[in-house]
Amino acid sequence: MSEFFKSVDKIQYEGPESTNPLAFRHYNPDEVILGKTMREHLRFAACYWHNFCWDGADVFGGGTFGRPWLQAGDAMQRAKEKADVAFEFFSKLNIPFYCFHDIDVAPEGASIKEYVNNFSAMTDVLAQKQEETGLELLWGTANVFSNPRYMSGAATNPDPEIFSYAATQVFNAMNATKKLGGHNYVLWGGREGYETLLNTDLKRERAQLGRFMQMVVEHKYKIGFDGLLLIEPKPQEPTKHQYDYDTATVYGFLKEYGLEKEFAVNIEANHATLSGHSFHHEIATAFALGIFGSIDANRGDAQLGWDTDQFPNSVEEMTLICYEILKNGGYTSGGFNFDTKLRRQSIDAEDLFHGHIGGMDTCALGLKKAAAMIQNDFIDAAKTKRYNGWDQALGQDILNGKLSLEALATQSVDNSIAPKHVSGQQELLENLVNGVIFK
Amino acid sequence: MSEFFKSVDKIQYEGPESTNPLAFRHYNPDEVILGKTMREHLRFAACYWHNFCWDGADVFGGGTFGRPWLQAGDAMQRAKEKADVAFEFFSKLNIPFYCFHDIDVAPEGASIKEYVNNFSAMTDVLAQKQEETGLELLWGTANVFSNPRYMSGAATNPDPEIFSYAATQVFNAMNATKKLGGHNYVLWGGREGYETLLNTDLKRERAQLGRFMQMVVEHKYKIGFDGLLLIEPKPQEPTKHQYDYDTATVYGFLKEYGLEKEFAVNIEANHATLSGHSFHHEIATAFALGIFGSIDANRGDAQLGWDTDQFPNSVEEMTLICYEILKNGGYTSGGFNFDTKLRRQSIDAEDLFHGHIGGMDTCALGLKKAAAMIQNDFIDAAKTKRYNGWDQALGQDILNGKLSLEALATQSVDNSIAPKHVSGQQELLENLVNGVIFK
Amino acid sequence: MSEFFKSVDKIQYEGPESTNPLAFRHYNPDEVILGKTMREHLRFAACYWHNFCWDGADVFGGGTFGRPWLQAGDAMQRAKEKADVAFEFFSKLNIPFYCFHDIDVAPEGASIKEYVNNFSAMTDVLAQKQEETGLELLWGTANVFSNPRYMSGAATNPDPEIFSYAATQVFNAMNATKKLGGHNYVLWGGREGYETLLNTDLKRERAQLGRFMQMVVEHKYKIGFDGLLLIEPKPQEPTKHQYDYDTATVYGFLKEYGLEKEFAVNIEANHATLSGHSFHHEIATAFALGIFGSIDANRGDAQLGWDTDQFPNSVEEMTLICYEILKNGGYTSGGFNFDTKLRRQSIDAEDLFHGHIGGMDTCALGLKKAAAMIQNDFIDAAKTKRYNGWDQALGQDILNGKLSLEALATQSVDNSIAPKHVSGQQELLENLVNGVIFK
Amino acid sequence: MSEFFKSVDKIQYEGPESTNPLAFRHYNPDEVILGKTMREHLRFAACYWHNFCWDGADVFGGGTFGRPWLQAGDAMQRAKEKADVAFEFFSKLNIPFYCFHDIDVAPEGASIKEYVNNFSAMTDVLAQKQEETGLELLWGTANVFSNPRYMSGAATNPDPEIFSYAATQVFNAMNATKKLGGHNYVLWGGREGYETLLNTDLKRERAQLGRFMQMVVEHKYKIGFDGLLLIEPKPQEPTKHQYDYDTATVYGFLKEYGLEKEFAVNIEANHATLSGHSFHHEIATAFALGIFGSIDANRGDAQLGWDTDQFPNSVEEMTLICYEILKNGGYTSGGFNFDTKLRRQSIDAEDLFHGHIGGMDTCALGLKKAAAMIQNDFIDAAKTKRYNGWDQALGQDILNGKLSLEALATQSVDNSIAPKHVSGQQELLENLVNGVIFK
Ligand SMILES: [Co+2]
Ligand SMILES: [Co+2]
Ligand SMILES: [Co+2]
Ligand SMILES: [Co+2]
Ligand SMILES: [Co+2]
Ligand SMILES: [Co+2]
Ligand SMILES: [Co+2]
Ligand SMILES: [Co+2]
Repeated sequence: MSEFFKSVDKIQYEGPESTNPLAFRHYNPDEVILGKTMREHLRFAACYWHNFCWDGADVFGGGTFGRPWLQAGDAMQRAKEKADVAFEFFSKLNIPFYCFHDIDVAPEGASIKEYVNNFSAMTDVLAQKQEETGLELLWGTANVFSNPRYMSGAATNPDPEIFSYAATQVFNAMNATKKLGGHNYVLWGGREGYETLLNTDLKRERAQLGRFMQMVVEHKYKIGFDGLLLIEPKPQEPTKHQYDYDTATVYGFLKEYGLEKEFAVNIEANHATLSGHSFHHEIATAFALGIFGSIDANRGDAQLGWDTDQFPNSVEEMTLICYEILKNGGYTSGGFNFDTKLRRQSIDAEDLFHGHIGGMDTCALGLKKAAAMIQNDFIDAAKTKRYNGWDQALGQDILNGKLSLEALATQSVDNSIAPKHVSGQQELLENLVNGVIFK
Repeated sequence: MSEFFKSVDKIQYEGPESTNPLAFRHYNPDEVILGKTMREHLRFAACYWHNFCWDGADVFGGGTFGRPWLQAGDAMQRAKEKADVAFEFFSKLNIPFYCFHDIDVAPEGASIKEYVNNFSAMTDVLAQKQEETGLELLWGTANVFSNPRYMSGAATNPDPEIFSYAATQVFNAMNATKKLGGHNYVLWGGREGYETLLNTDLKRERAQLGRFMQMVVEHKYKIGFDGLLLIEPKPQEPTKHQYDYDTATVYGFLKEYGLEKEFAVNIEANHATLSGHSFHHEIATAFALGIFGSIDANRGDAQLGWDTDQFPNSVEEMTLICYEILKNGGYTSGGFNFDTKLRRQSIDAEDLFHGHIGGMDTCALGLKKAAAMIQNDFIDAAKTKRYNGWDQALGQDILNGKLSLEALATQSVDNSIAPKHVSGQQELLENLVNGVIFK
Repeated sequence: MSEFFKSVDKIQYEGPESTNPLAFRHYNPDEVILGKTMREHLRFAACYWHNFCWDGADVFGGGTFGRPWLQAGDAMQRAKEKADVAFEFFSKLNIPFYCFHDIDVAPEGASIKEYVNNFSAMTDVLAQKQEETGLELLWGTANVFSNPRYMSGAATNPDPEIFSYAATQVFNAMNATKKLGGHNYVLWGGREGYETLLNTDLKRERAQLGRFMQMVVEHKYKIGFDGLLLIEPKPQEPTKHQYDYDTATVYGFLKEYGLEKEFAVNIEANHATLSGHSFHHEIATAFALGIFGSIDANRGDAQLGWDTDQFPNSVEEMTLICYEILKNGGYTSGGFNFDTKLRRQSIDAEDLFHGHIGGMDTCALGLKKAAAMIQNDFIDAAKTKRYNGWDQALGQDILNGKLSLEALATQSVDNSIAPKHVSGQQELLENLVNGVIFK
Repeated sequence: MSEFFKSVDKIQYEGPESTNPLAFRHYNPDEVILGKTMREHLRFAACYWHNFCWDGADVFGGGTFGRPWLQAGDAMQRAKEKADVAFEFFSKLNIPFYCFHDIDVAPEGASIKEYVNNFSAMTDVLAQKQEETGLELLWGTANVFSNPRYMSGAATNPDPEIFSYAATQVFNAMNATKKLGGHNYVLWGGREGYETLLNTDLKRERAQLGRFMQMVVEHKYKIGFDGLLLIEPKPQEPTKHQYDYDTATVYGFLKEYGLEKEFAVNIEANHATLSGHSFHHEIATAFALGIFGSIDANRGDAQLGWDTDQFPNSVEEMTLICYEILKNGGYTSGGFNFDTKLRRQSIDAEDLFHGHIGGMDTCALGLKKAAAMIQNDFIDAAKTKRYNGWDQALGQDILNGKLSLEALATQSVDNSIAPKHVSGQQELLENLVNGVIFK
């Protein structure tokens, strides 16, 4: 396909004073922050699906975008045109990574064999595109939720043949990911959940999913894939209840099947808020549990109860996210992926750039503010002071198991303890954070 | 204290046709259902706190009830009057169990020593009351959230001396529970959570809580308490985020600290819905994870975002709860506790009876309907048929680990599998359930 | 098209003991309740769109149903096949009414002229179908939200030409509704709202919508349509915010444009709960404001933040709805419409029957229980007693404006008033309701 | 009472670089923005109730603050000490306005006469305090929700004597507000709603409330109070449903009783979000309906379902609020009131200052950013362009009623209109806003 985004050149950093809407104001890939370039810190990725496989339809209406490569036609030809447009976009956006599902890039075909062949052929196309552009694959995944056969789940389907079909897709998608040098492989259990408990055997379905994930781990070692395996939590939608509801739930599931060292989480901001948590909570929890992996940065709408997948635009929120990531050593193989959808009314080709540029600048600014917080780390200082007692004798004796409940109760009564509560200083800390963000 | 509920006699079963509002229409304690009496199945308990320690105040206004025993006066004398009223109520309600927090039954006193002494004295009073009335203690617990010292948590407090104070209370409450023949001991982490991540060290607080729970387990064995240890999940309120958010989260926490065989959950209906799940979901999940313990039956309000602790009154919902419990063998040491509050406008003494009678009849009717479902178990039949493939060769080979991802993918492609989706029949199953409830 | 639902005969009433899933257990059309037949009370309607225009697709996956009449082909031919199936279904379901959008029944065509011609031709087909079957049209409406042109609204679109297109559709749909003897005409403002305030002029859009609604009223009188005009409130989805958020909001809008005597509301249960209210609240509010019209009976899921459009199945809820309707004199031109979707996994042709039969039986049972409540109306009695003071001198003087704030304050102080609060008896009333439902 | 905040001097503006937590970094009262000082634009007020009448109790625990003036003692003496502390605080905070409820400032007493006398005496004390400090009263109000007598409502109470008691309080509070030169008088219907529809007559209660509000208007004119009358919408809490749910609902109510020219709304940010709207939505809606009055700036927590009344700290949100206010001409008699509560763990006297300083700086920064947006008003420009068609012939003819539905439909078909949809550019506009905030 010939050039699609004719009106757009490669996006450049022009600084905060720029009024060019097709330039970065804060994301300066080569600028060094705390010893690493912004490119290395942020590891931005754009996605294939929302950007190139979706034409603007929603439940109440048809596509508004009119993308040429989504019109009827020879399926493999259209897939190649789509790849042309996608890589033109990724390159012009100046983004280092991309992500895809198997059937984003290749036609499903009319049979499982066609699926395998089509996907294999398109993997070769992608390899060549990566070669030409320097793009890298942040992660690959398999779509085992859109085809009607998966309406009742993939690994958790009541029919083991459907489990087998899903296994076939994941097998091929893992292999393709390895072949394309992917840094991670993601599982999102879109239909791994239930619509009604009346027809659902929770124990069976959990066991099926546990076995599926073990098979994935075994295959990873077999093929020598050295990226991370990631689970993307989401509470519901399309299902009424999804088994990987949130980070804490995923952790429990991993522990049940002995997988907590093999999987990390890919946290999506919008899924965090749909599950009743702040985005920050999910990130902090993942680090506390040792299973942080990667991020889908798309935000939701505070008033809406479904996944709106909007571009992140709150620097206030993103600063705390970046602070948390920096404090915990930064990304290893993960990164900030934009699993983002344009608003259905944003029908211009340039809108795809506006959305991503805004998202990238939001993250970049969050990173800078977070770095400033770390250089004068009042949060760390406040926590150290607040928990100081736990580093002293009493605290250590408790944590080390030297004191039974009885021993502790006895000494507390003998000493007539009467501990005083001290201020948590939440408002002061919030002011200090804003002091950095709005310096 | 002399008789308080003068207008009320012992509540009796009078059958569905009764128009006496102070009679049971469905709860017939000695009626046998599926081989056990209703009393044995339902194991109803009433609570001390909402019924006898609360005077009808809310955040926007003062007490409306004017309970005499909550007026100013000699604290131990008032505590004894409260016990008189409480046991008069329990007896007249014809309920077999009750539950309490340490400081519901005894004054906190001005020092930790006074606390110990007051509680010890009141434990003797309770023992005598149990003796006189035949009431049993379903569970005891310690209130380590109301006193200002616990404003930043008990086990998760930044100050280990406050941890120690909480340990002292739990030590005494466990001992009292054992002494009173309690069937379970409950931990509800009311303030075990955070208000803001800015001053919170999640890892430290989790480790503190984990150690606390281990100490509780060790103490249980030391004193030979043979009841169940229970955790009551709640997502938030009073905290912004509570660490025992829901059943799945609690399970992960227990696994992290090797406690999953030592604790079960006490599921509260209203906490389930506040955490974004149905009550049924939480019960089914607890059984699937092997950690079901007991139930606080109070319902919430679907439009309100806080714990309203209303009496259960949906037979439609309770039928599915009872079905789940019956299918899984029924309660062992747990039961249906009413952790319920009157509406603040329900100021008459009789209102306490109306609330509990309605709740008990709702559960009783749910039990009867559930028993009817089990006698012609279309749900079980539908599930058995639906998952049948997993009991055949392919399903078993997958679950037993005989097939690697590659082997499964290879045979799927070789066989050109093309599995068909089949109806989940949700509407039919819902109709069948209503067919039993509204026969 | 030849017979589609070959396995299903006309659904008959067989009574509560029937185990035939394709029979009514409670809906007995000719049974007389409080002086009217159930058919007359309930005025059931089935819808064209979800049943016959939707193939089971959701945002995350394609159609699962495989309906033959939705496959590619000659558009008018397919529309006629669809009408055949629809009327076969309506007739076999034994339902007296149906509802449609213009483009449910006729192809949109490639131009506005084709639209007019197609719709006109299909209106004739529908007229003949009605004649043949005895079906009546509960209401007609125009779909001015699905076509991409309406992505930014219809009447509230920033482009007056798009307003004009919508006006054309509504003109034709109103005329068709009149021609087909429709009992009501409905406006649902699916895209009449905003996605972001950054590009939205609220005052302009409100004025546009107000004028549009006045034009509709004027046209109604011009053509002599003697049905009701109805607005269907919904808070959001597909928009972030919809202008007809809930009943109270619609009332304010109608008052602003002097339309409160011209429009009534068509309340959908699921829209009520999405707007933060109970279904009962919306019905009671509509009656209190004098704008009750009709009902879309589909329920939502208490845990999900989008419109699931499930079949009603709570007799407990429906009893209160029916009580409210009966107390206020019953439907005039409205009725219970099932704006319901099958679950995406309910792919069998029979599932369409199961869903509707369950919904109809739920409403029928609610009607019977409500009639029983009215025959011994403890709610009415409780309210009469509770508000009695407002029928006495003081209350009447206040309401009649005889007392100024000063006069009332003066006499209150002079009389040293000290009014006492009395119990609201919520738990007792809830028990009495359950006493009727579960007699 | 002698000086309470000994460690705090009068808060001064020190600029963005200041690291003094007890200084303003952005609020510079005398700085001129778009022709007015910041003091005049923002019209900040602090409240009496949360700051000086609340000791840190919540539903699950007692007071944590230990304020001396809230301890037991002679009620009038304590009230005077409270006034001393309050005005010391207001003065040191450098805030120009305050707000109160009648019983915040004076003891309720044991009878209605004592109430009148106490309040009268304390009004004199406040008058003198205002005189001494230069503070002004932004608004006064009456608390007709805390006393148990109001448990079932004030104006909407089933007992007209309770209505009379409320009328007495409002009469006295309006008179005091006038005497103290108050700029507005506020009604918040804390208990004007219902707990259950089973005991509630919506029509009666609406009529009672409508009459009450008319009495308030009549009294306003009688005493020549020239401030604004304000209604503060809130959806629920403490009631299940409150009649002044949100701005649109209040508008409908005002229209029903012919009061829409007499009342404006006092919008609280947290009440906006609890009602399912953004804070921005409520402000924009109030302006669109012509009933904007004043603001309670306290924010909620996006994950919590109750009123947390936190200090505002999002400059991103506040910028849009200030933009909306500036575009509509700014406050007349209203202002930014902090109806804010400290976190229960913020027990230090200084925390009261931290909270307010942060809130005031957030609003001040929002004002500056909004002024910058207005000086290069891309939002206005985008809207003007977007709705341009409505200023042309077709749009004007529609709005002016020159075209009937039929005429418009006819000409649309005759002209074969085929309007095209154009991009809404949401992402671009969001980027431009951030471009101003993070310049
Ligand atoms: Co998502
Ligand atoms: Co994602
Ligand atoms: Co609770
Ligand atoms: Co509980
Ligand atoms: Co709907
Ligand atoms: Co509808
Ligand atoms: Co307020
Ligand atoms: Co508030």
